[in-house]
Amino acid sequence: MKILSNKADLMQAVNIVSKAVAVRSTISILECILITASGNEIKMTANNTELGIETVVNGTVIEGGVIALDAKIISDIIRKLPDNEVAISTDDKFKTSIVCEKAHFEITGKSGDDFSYIPDLEKSDAIEISQFTLKEVIRQTIFSIAASENNIVMTGELFEIEDNILKVISLDGHRISIRKIELNDSYPHKKVIVPGKTLQELNKILTGESDEIVQLFITENHITFMFDQTIVVSRLIDGNYIDTSKMISTDYETKVTVNKRELFDCIDRATLLSKEGDKKPVVINVNDEAMEIRMTSFIGSMNEEIEIKKEGKNILIGFNPNFFIDVLRVIDDEEVSLYMINQKSPCIIKDDKENFIYLILPINFSSVER
Amino acid sequence: MKILSNKADLMQAVNIVSKAVAVRSTISILECILITASGNEIKMTANNTELGIETVVNGTVIEGGVIALDAKIISDIIRKLPDNEVAISTDDKFKTSIVCEKAHFEITGKSGDDFSYIPDLEKSDAIEISQFTLKEVIRQTIFSIAASENNIVMTGELFEIEDNILKVISLDGHRISIRKIELNDSYPHKKVIVPGKTLQELNKILTGESDEIVQLFITENHITFMFDQTIVVSRLIDGNYIDTSKMISTDYETKVTVNKRELFDCIDRATLLSKEGDKKPVVINVNDEAMEIRMTSFIGSMNEEIEIKKEGKNILIGFNPNFFIDVLRVIDDEEVSLYMINQKSPCIIKDDKENFIYLILPINFSSVER
Repeated sequence: MKILSNKADLMQAVNIVSKAVAVRSTISILECILITASGNEIKMTANNTELGIETVVNGTVIEGGVIALDAKIISDIIRKLPDNEVAISTDDKFKTSIVCEKAHFEITGKSGDDFSYIPDLEKSDAIEISQFTLKEVIRQTIFSIAASENNIVMTGELFEIEDNILKVISLDGHRISIRKIELNDSYPHKKVIVPGKTLQELNKILTGESDEIVQLFITENHITFMFDQTIVVSRLIDGNYIDTSKMISTDYETKVTVNKRELFDCIDRATLLSKEGDKKPVVINVNDEAMEIRMTSFIGSMNEEIEIKKEGKNILIGFNPNFFIDVLRVIDDEEVSLYMINQKSPCIIKDDKENFIYLILPINFSSVER
Repeated sequence: MKILSNKADLMQAVNIVSKAVAVRSTISILECILITASGNEIKMTANNTELGIETVVNGTVIEGGVIALDAKIISDIIRKLPDNEVAISTDDKFKTSIVCEKAHFEITGKSGDDFSYIPDLEKSDAIEISQFTLKEVIRQTIFSIAASENNIVMTGELFEIEDNILKVISLDGHRISIRKIELNDSYPHKKVIVPGKTLQELNKILTGESDEIVQLFITENHITFMFDQTIVVSRLIDGNYIDTSKMISTDYETKVTVNKRELFDCIDRATLLSKEGDKKPVVINVNDEAMEIRMTSFIGSMNEEIEIKKEGKNILIGFNPNFFIDVLRVIDDEEVSLYMINQKSPCIIKDDKENFIYLILPINFSSVER
């Protein structure tokens, strides 16, 4: 194999496929990036068996061939090369030489024979969404997947397509995040659980351009994302997702509308009094025109008032402050509305059109507050 | 005590004195920042007994007094306050309230009685140097202090003043860094060992302005740095510093002049083939008009040629590449000159005026190179 490309193109491709390289695997081929040169096309591929990524590299094929190179080593070498044309060539013993200007590296690669290629799935019935929207949807839901694998379906996100609506849901047992997106076309009903890890890695390589389209293909066990010159293939999580439809009540006794930035800053200040693992709630006391936010822990106490617009009853309720921070961080609106029923019922934060709905369970603070 | 200041001034003062707060000390008062309000002056002080820092805080004293506050907590609180005026007040039980706009924190402080105040040393015969120069001198020498405390004097830097010359030396047994600075005045001879840790922290709080002066005061066991509204007092290291005068030879058999950036990039590329703890040398092969740099390790090999100007003999010599990287990173000149004698003698990198002299011991590579 012999290919010519330039440092920037190689670096970009390595950065993209690296997201699917296995970390500390006992199978060393999973820690490799496969370079394939055939016809006029150079491709890089990585696959940790859960997630596979393939991308086209701009460049010229001088001689076709295949080589698997340790991802860490090739990535380090390319990063440190001068900004110029790079020649990568291999011999029949997988000795690989990387030459750029006067710099000359030699490393030993592996045969591509043992590499686990990403499955070649049927690509029909593409669901189309802009890169910008997909990136936003992931950012606005990914924080509430479950960290522990006790309930494997909660480590993923539900992607449900019905007509022209994509609904994305994540939940961890204490909170739920729901985002609804209107698509340009209508599609047959699909309902799959996409691993959170896949979405986190995908989010890093989506450029987020609003006029660039991502095509989604859903097959029995896989979801495929195609965009730019890249294909991301992920296994789906097998199982039944929790039915959230009955958890989101539309009734409320109290509706509070508040400046998002002020609420964020105020709860952020409260958070510094709670140490990790110390489950002190932030207590919210809703009065007629103001809401008092207070926090008491072994470190000290804080209280602060913010102006609000209120409908309905006064309420005194406690929450994990970090759950509020996570939600307020991803909402782009200037004002947010909080809907509450009583001290033991969840708080719902949503916009009028219900494009986003966030549910946060309260903490019984009477037992914890001094 | 009651003081008024604003968030930015408080934050700046906390950031400065925090450099002298003890980390994970068993004596909790050493983890505190002392706030002193007397007359019209507010001061913050921290002292871990090796290093003490005191700085003046802009603000207004409403009621004089003293309070010691946990550095981590007060720093977190101030960082998260709105950008506005802050009132800090204490009662006779050391309960401290911090109020800014509508935010109100209460924490419990400590009496200042147990605080170890920084020693009030005689401040005469100030040695003056610009902040810019002192910061540069530290940056250009601090990397070659010894990390281990086996030989305590090597964890510090020698500061020697003779007439109008300040000479700063650091060494770790494998390399020596020497910087000479011409001062505006002449001073009596002084020779002290300043802890490396002090210089690292000092470097973080020096603004590096060339028209701001630092005054140095050297007493028997301490060195004091006064600048802006800040006083840094450090213990000196007791002991005799290694005499380096005979180690720096002015003879050479080979002089190589090379573009600094090219040499840095080339050795930086070589470095990626050496893993931590793996003592592979970079081998430098000096020929008439070019110098070949090569590296071989279990990861692979690299070689690269760079153009040079050479005086004297050809030479083949091996070094720890990281030692070269450290030196080349802090030299600001476009070209550097390397002086070598033979494979077993150190390489000296210096400028013509000997404002800087770096010595690096070679590695016997014949036994390690394949």
